[in-house]
Amino acid sequence: MRAVVLMSGGLDSCVCAGMAHGMGYELHILFVKYGQKTEKKEEQCVKKLANYFKADLKILDLEFLKDIGGSSLTSDVEVTRDDTGIPSTYVPFRNSIFLSLATAWAETLNANAVFYGANSIDFSGYPDCRPDYFKAFQNLIEKGTKRGDIKLIVPLAEMSKSEIVKKGIELRLPLEHTWSCYFNTEKACGKCESCRLRLKGFEEAQYKDPIEYE
Amino acid sequence: MRAVVLMSGGLDSCVCAGMAHGMGYELHILFVKYGQKTEKKEEQCVKKLANYFKADLKILDLEFLKDIGGSSLTSDVEVTRDDTGIPSTYVPFRNSIFLSLATAWAETLNANAVFYGANSIDFSGYPDCRPDYFKAFQNLIEKGTKRGDIKLIVPLAEMSKSEIVKKGIELRLPLEHTWSCYFNTEKACGKCESCRLRLKGFEEAQYKDPIEYE
Repeated sequence: MRAVVLMSGGLDSCVCAGMAHGMGYELHILFVKYGQKTEKKEEQCVKKLANYFKADLKILDLEFLKDIGGSSLTSDVEVTRDDTGIPSTYVPFRNSIFLSLATAWAETLNANAVFYGANSIDFSGYPDCRPDYFKAFQNLIEKGTKRGDIKLIVPLAEMSKSEIVKKGIELRLPLEHTWSCYFNTEKACGKCESCRLRLKGFEEAQYKDPIEYE
Repeated sequence: MRAVVLMSGGLDSCVCAGMAHGMGYELHILFVKYGQKTEKKEEQCVKKLANYFKADLKILDLEFLKDIGGSSLTSDVEVTRDDTGIPSTYVPFRNSIFLSLATAWAETLNANAVFYGANSIDFSGYPDCRPDYFKAFQNLIEKGTKRGDIKLIVPLAEMSKSEIVKKGIELRLPLEHTWSCYFNTEKACGKCESCRLRLKGFEEAQYKDPIEYE
């Protein structure tokens, strides 16, 4: 069994890959650089994780998303730290671009599945993280590929951050090689929306986060 | 009204853009280079057409599709000229990648529509050219964008090649600036599946194709 796994180098994508690996899939990891401020940090993490999983890794440069703008992840707009409505970190239609690239690769590899570590609970503010969205994408795969039988698997969809942390610990994953912070600082800031979610997850799971904070 | 128009520099994409222009849309043209053998020819055509429509043009380099392979359009596999089953020119999940990129751009532009010159009649062999596929993509846009109101318009979907030629003539489009041939030769080969469809379309429409053939 083969799977393409989209990875960002964050905690969630590490646990997602660990789950796919645990299910016996041969992993083909896709990492997309799209001008996000933390792309170097993320790339370092993904390389270490690909090495850990002994996985095939493809790194794709997609400056287009930075070029068209529209998100605080790729532009100089401030990352807003409260999440009323759709957060400023939303990147227009990003998940569809990523999942399409992953599905294309899966089709050429004759892979059975595409794994994506998105989470519907913590990021329900993003339109393209909702369960209905993933159902729509599964339908697109069925209609738009040769055999129509690639499964989109979003294993963390219904998990809370503390459940994700616990799963990572249970699978003995190298969570020290993950980066979740929105900022490109030496150590994670510990204050942004993403750091706070992560820290709360570790706290609730009663484990110590192995990465360093400012 | 604004629209993002995916263009390949072929006859169909020219007529598609002409129809969007005729409906009063301000055009934002997206051309993707993905290592297709004829990308330079196509790029020259798209630039001339963008100029003709006084449209904004974005050219995106996406070597990824060549890199993952799987199609005779991007690899050294021979282009098969008969079309039993799915042709060798099928590029895995290409339309989903292109439409996702176009939709992302449309979202940042606050555009109302994405136009795509795909044709379900002549290319029913491609899974991602069928009417059901485009319905599935429209549903994805509704579920996965902020406002969910961008319309995917595929105006040539149900038109025959001769109807497309007639529409191009009626709109007085510069069809001499289009390239349909699968081969990167100075003049179009006149023999490949794509040339034959085009020539048959002109013949049935009773117009002379303004491009040169070998």
